[in-house]
Amino acid sequence: MAKGRIFSGMQPSGNFHMGNYQVLTNWIKLQEEYNCVYSIVDWHALTSSYENTSKLPERIENMALDWFSAGLDPEKNIIFIQSHVKEHAELHLLLSMMTPLSWLERVPTYKDKLQQLGEMGKEINTYGFLGYPELMAADIMLYKADAVPVAEDQIPHLELTREIVRRFANIYKPVFPEPQAILSPLLPGIDGRKMSKSYGNEIPYAAESDELHSRVRLMVTDPKRIKKTDPGDPDICTVYTFHKIFSPEQNEIAVHCRNAGIGCVDCKKRLAEKMVSTLADVHGRRKELSLKPGKIKEILAYGAERARKLASATMDEVKSVMNLG
Amino acid sequence: MAKGRIFSGMQPSGNFHMGNYQVLTNWIKLQEEYNCVYSIVDWHALTSSYENTSKLPERIENMALDWFSAGLDPEKNIIFIQSHVKEHAELHLLLSMMTPLSWLERVPTYKDKLQQLGEMGKEINTYGFLGYPELMAADIMLYKADAVPVAEDQIPHLELTREIVRRFANIYKPVFPEPQAILSPLLPGIDGRKMSKSYGNEIPYAAESDELHSRVRLMVTDPKRIKKTDPGDPDICTVYTFHKIFSPEQNEIAVHCRNAGIGCVDCKKRLAEKMVSTLADVHGRRKELSLKPGKIKEILAYGAERARKLASATMDEVKSVMNLG
Ligand code: SF4
Ligand code: SF4
Repeated sequence: MAKGRIFSGMQPSGNFHMGNYQVLTNWIKLQEEYNCVYSIVDWHALTSSYENTSKLPERIENMALDWFSAGLDPEKNIIFIQSHVKEHAELHLLLSMMTPLSWLERVPTYKDKLQQLGEMGKEINTYGFLGYPELMAADIMLYKADAVPVAEDQIPHLELTREIVRRFANIYKPVFPEPQAILSPLLPGIDGRKMSKSYGNEIPYAAESDELHSRVRLMVTDPKRIKKTDPGDPDICTVYTFHKIFSPEQNEIAVHCRNAGIGCVDCKKRLAEKMVSTLADVHGRRKELSLKPGKIKEILAYGAERARKLASATMDEVKSVMNLG
Repeated sequence: MAKGRIFSGMQPSGNFHMGNYQVLTNWIKLQEEYNCVYSIVDWHALTSSYENTSKLPERIENMALDWFSAGLDPEKNIIFIQSHVKEHAELHLLLSMMTPLSWLERVPTYKDKLQQLGEMGKEINTYGFLGYPELMAADIMLYKADAVPVAEDQIPHLELTREIVRRFANIYKPVFPEPQAILSPLLPGIDGRKMSKSYGNEIPYAAESDELHSRVRLMVTDPKRIKKTDPGDPDICTVYTFHKIFSPEQNEIAVHCRNAGIGCVDCKKRLAEKMVSTLADVHGRRKELSLKPGKIKEILAYGAERARKLASATMDEVKSVMNLG
């Protein structure tokens, strides 16, 4: 059976953190099971930062470095910068014609984010900001993605995409699959709550050995496990959530936790060591790669070329069923 | 001094009438004074007719036939189909990011047309319909047009474009000229009111000799001119408005009218004859051209290529000042 296709994107917001790294490790897993299309969505970044774009080129380059150094494979996946493929704008425009305004207005994150960014003094009540989920729909549909890895808070966006897919099929002809969600849980902060700078519970992506060890020591574990001889439940333990990202031997750890074969102090030490070595590798590769900006550009150009091929095949179909040129 | 540049477009709505012909004759005049870019704006047609596009290809071809047979020169002007130049969608998307939603909501024609089309049972309360004037702004700006021939009712759209041009210059850098309006009066119906099927006052574009003569005979003239010896005022005469389109000797007619050198009956007869012969020529050329659909396609492809060259030069500048790839 042919592999399904996945699309996902990340905004070059200039704030790469451990949560992004988690998403990447998830993408890296998916690259084995699916044909994946991963995009640095610079046009999306404009929705909230159009007023100051001076750092954008640097942020895009940094994001590419983060992706490749983490192990995202530019041969297995199609990796490119959104603005290099004009078809995203073309499909966005065509879909805009048939998308009821009310569908966009009622996206739950819309009003929230508008207020939140408004309070930060950003003037983002723009036509493009309202159209954000429409552009996301175009991104996904352009590659006929069967599935999209999403966090909980993006489910309404994906639901909107599915509605647009159905509406397109009703008005014209079925061209697009209805993309399914591949739900990926958000990495928590060390206190088990949502990771956020304002809670002071985050682990910086650039952290080195000492900081990593001390942050991991503070992590909350299964609260019912008091003594080392109590069996633990890894599924409610923040430390274990991190093991799932950093430790290939995660299953073994879960077994040891459940039968009290390992103590939390040791378990944390193992995690911290894993994180130190993994991140040291990643950061090392990143440093090496950063010396070859020409190579990065080349890889992204190659990705854009492959993306354009898929995108233009989709647009040919779209134009044909819409009776356009 | 270099000639200024003009952009204008027409929707392939399938309803080519005498008013469109007037616009064309105006464009034909402008082709001598300006570098003109004229576009069959098929994407715009989607804003109100996305639900049924089956007639679109035929309408686009008909519009091209109407344009070329009327004398619009594909060498002097750049003539193309909007959807053949993806940069329209790209610039539209980029401008959308910085255009306040309220600017689009307050365009006077927006609410009116929404209601009007809603009453006709059209479901057009879409994101794309709201973005109509934004797409128009992108069309104009993409060619850095210095001027745009518009009818009175499109002035608010052009004013919006000018606002977007200024906002773009403020946020990034000045890239676009503020396009000036070249106001072209609307051709009235035979009773002097706005030409409209619902008033029964229109002259069909396909009308032949008998119908043209009888419609012109019914035209209102200067109401103060009762007797043939009364001097007339051509500026308030519907017949004269048509002479301005169809009669190269229009100035002479105006003089004769003012000094009572010609009677209204003769004046109308001259107009009708002029219309018959002009339209017969146009329709003849149209028939000939319609036998060469390959030729039409070729001309439009040539126009698209020339348009893309200008468009992509503009986009290079836009992307550079916006710090995009
Ligand atoms: S042993 Fe590890 S997984 Fe189990 S509760 Fe302790 S820290 Fe968590
Ligand atoms: S002479 Fe001609 S232009 Fe003058 S009022 Fe009569 S119809 Fe009109």
